[in-house]
Amino acid sequence: MGEHGIEQGVTAAQGFAAAAVQCGIKEGSTKPDLTVVLSDRPANVAAVFTQNRAAAAPVILSRERANNGRATAVVANSGNANACTGPQGLQDARDMSAAVAQRFGLSDDDVLVLSTGVIGVPLPMPKILHGIDRLEPSADAGLDFAHAIMTTDTRQKVYAVEREIGGVNVRIGGAAKGSGMIHPNMATLLGVITTDAQVEPQFLHSSLKSAVDLTFNMISIDGDTSTNDAVLVLANGAAGGTLIGEGTAGAELFSRALLDVCTTLAKEIVRDGEGAHCLIEIRVTGAHSGSDARQIARSISASALVKTAVFGADPNWGRVLCAAGYSGGELDPDRATLHLDDICLLRLGTGMPYDRSRATELLRQPLVTFSLDLGLGDGAAVAWGCDMSYDYVRINAEYTT
Amino acid sequence: MGEHGIEQGVTAAQGFAAAAVQCGIKEGSTKPDLTVVLSDRPANVAAVFTQNRAAAAPVILSRERANNGRATAVVANSGNANACTGPQGLQDARDMSAAVAQRFGLSDDDVLVLSTGVIGVPLPMPKILHGIDRLEPSADAGLDFAHAIMTTDTRQKVYAVEREIGGVNVRIGGAAKGSGMIHPNMATLLGVITTDAQVEPQFLHSSLKSAVDLTFNMISIDGDTSTNDAVLVLANGAAGGTLIGEGTAGAELFSRALLDVCTTLAKEIVRDGEGAHCLIEIRVTGAHSGSDARQIARSISASALVKTAVFGADPNWGRVLCAAGYSGGELDPDRATLHLDDICLLRLGTGMPYDRSRATELLRQPLVTFSLDLGLGDGAAVAWGCDMSYDYVRINAEYTT
Repeated sequence: MGEHGIEQGVTAAQGFAAAAVQCGIKEGSTKPDLTVVLSDRPANVAAVFTQNRAAAAPVILSRERANNGRATAVVANSGNANACTGPQGLQDARDMSAAVAQRFGLSDDDVLVLSTGVIGVPLPMPKILHGIDRLEPSADAGLDFAHAIMTTDTRQKVYAVEREIGGVNVRIGGAAKGSGMIHPNMATLLGVITTDAQVEPQFLHSSLKSAVDLTFNMISIDGDTSTNDAVLVLANGAAGGTLIGEGTAGAELFSRALLDVCTTLAKEIVRDGEGAHCLIEIRVTGAHSGSDARQIARSISASALVKTAVFGADPNWGRVLCAAGYSGGELDPDRATLHLDDICLLRLGTGMPYDRSRATELLRQPLVTFSLDLGLGDGAAVAWGCDMSYDYVRINAEYTT
Repeated sequence: MGEHGIEQGVTAAQGFAAAAVQCGIKEGSTKPDLTVVLSDRPANVAAVFTQNRAAAAPVILSRERANNGRATAVVANSGNANACTGPQGLQDARDMSAAVAQRFGLSDDDVLVLSTGVIGVPLPMPKILHGIDRLEPSADAGLDFAHAIMTTDTRQKVYAVEREIGGVNVRIGGAAKGSGMIHPNMATLLGVITTDAQVEPQFLHSSLKSAVDLTFNMISIDGDTSTNDAVLVLANGAAGGTLIGEGTAGAELFSRALLDVCTTLAKEIVRDGEGAHCLIEIRVTGAHSGSDARQIARSISASALVKTAVFGADPNWGRVLCAAGYSGGELDPDRATLHLDDICLLRLGTGMPYDRSRATELLRQPLVTFSLDLGLGDGAAVAWGCDMSYDYVRINAEYTT
């Protein structure tokens, strides 16, 4: 492990290197906008993509390739989503991957492509191809990768963990980008995770799917995804150890570690939501079912009225219950109990007296927690959102121009 | 007809009178907040209510009573939604209706109740009961009714039409309140419509349901309704003429006139959306089905990214296609053609060159029209939204306090 810094995210695990350059995709921007992460050997890959019917060209290409279960490199650009770009867009995504394959001695099929940025504008391919020629991978460039995929994000989002699994130390690390309000229909979410664990492809996929459902999907409403959303994990096995698969000794540990990485990255995305001042955690218990709990938690976290109330430090708990009420999940207001942190606002349908100035104070903290018990069953879920401020409007009104 | 002004909305039709007082429900407010509209004879009634599971007490009460098909009066208050107020809330709604019944010599069941405002706070019943005592109905108070139901609305919304149906002149008029961004989960929508036509109760209901689906439901996403949304129509038959019912000569004319009233009121609500500068009309054609067209049109009109792009006068058409893509309706980007007014932005999946400064100019007009043809079938729909500005955040961050 040695020289690899765990703080590097996608290059924390052994055998992974990254590189990033600024190739000028977005006029006037000086940040790096083209990046690659690659493994020194073929890796197993699992991926989850947007359900949007206008899926971007790189999504169409990468979805097909990830289905093979193997990949060696991921190339990503920001500043242009290569979405709604027709047949030319698909060709451009292929050409991007071919250029990366050629530069690093891989076959085209080993390269996945991710893009994020403005929709409907053709990729400036000469700039991108020239940029690919200049990529010089190193194990210290994980933060550069995280920087290059940013759009309106204000900071890099990286995280990695180290665990002893199957007799060896393995690392799982990743980078993510969010920006946007994330929900209901906001900016692209990208997550790239790498690990040096040896993981059987099908198990890698089911682990990722479970983790994404509890994390990235709890900050982004199903079906309300951007044209480019993608989360993927590459497992290159460089740490050695026994193969991790369904039912093996290390399975549980690996899944939990992957969930840790996804949880941290997902919460970082929300914390850095456009114009956000705080992270709002919505804890739902006592729901009729687990899926009801998820629906209700997400509905509350996505409510513009809840988000603006928190921004205004206004303990307007009616908006929380209203959002629960239209979520589609079962709700009986007379059985509902709601807390803001440790302040009980509502008990079994009746509003409670509370210290308003303390509630206001709690709403001004960096983490605001609402706990809603529905009193109907055992379903539980947690979702995350952020407050909604003037800056959200400013950022999104000025995005392309 | 004579003395009745058609500009009075709910009192445009014969036999209807209204009254409004300021009873002080919301501290510091000086606008009228309690109002009644009543017919000089029993009327047939049809109503459509919120699907929210946390339906407010007045909704629970009025839904039950409207099922009888008869009503004589509607009492409404603003400043307090009487929602999430438990058994006491239901008792308060009953007491409100009983006081109105007593004051005007009606039976309790003849009185429907509507409330809008803050959720989770008990109604100040002494103030309301005292207010009811002071109501003095007149045929010239339709605008007062419209004023009294406003919350953050900036102006009254009233409209009425006069048509010759079945050999007599009939009027259909109404008042509405919206405020909020209307979607995805915004403030209460109330619509009260009165007519002096003689209309058979079942036909009245099916006419209202059809009109609401094409109008109020195209500015408010199904399931994403507030705790208090309600649209109702009272038909007192004071104009005489033959009974209008399914299959009768006047049926079509009546339905079309009711649709006119609902369309105008719905568009007025959007135009007066919190912080709105313009009305955005989304016209979808060529959809796989009518329901796909509706889903897609509403998804686009509700997209915060589309709304902020219009506010920023940014012809970012990718956001329009993205919102269509996650709507759940069928979409093939390569068959999609999009116009902003008469400017073609996208033809069969390919972005078109266009005059950017003219597009920007069009986005600054009071009416912004996007027309999306999906090239898949015959489904068509129209939805309305408004842009999203800093003021939206300000209004909603400051609402209760």
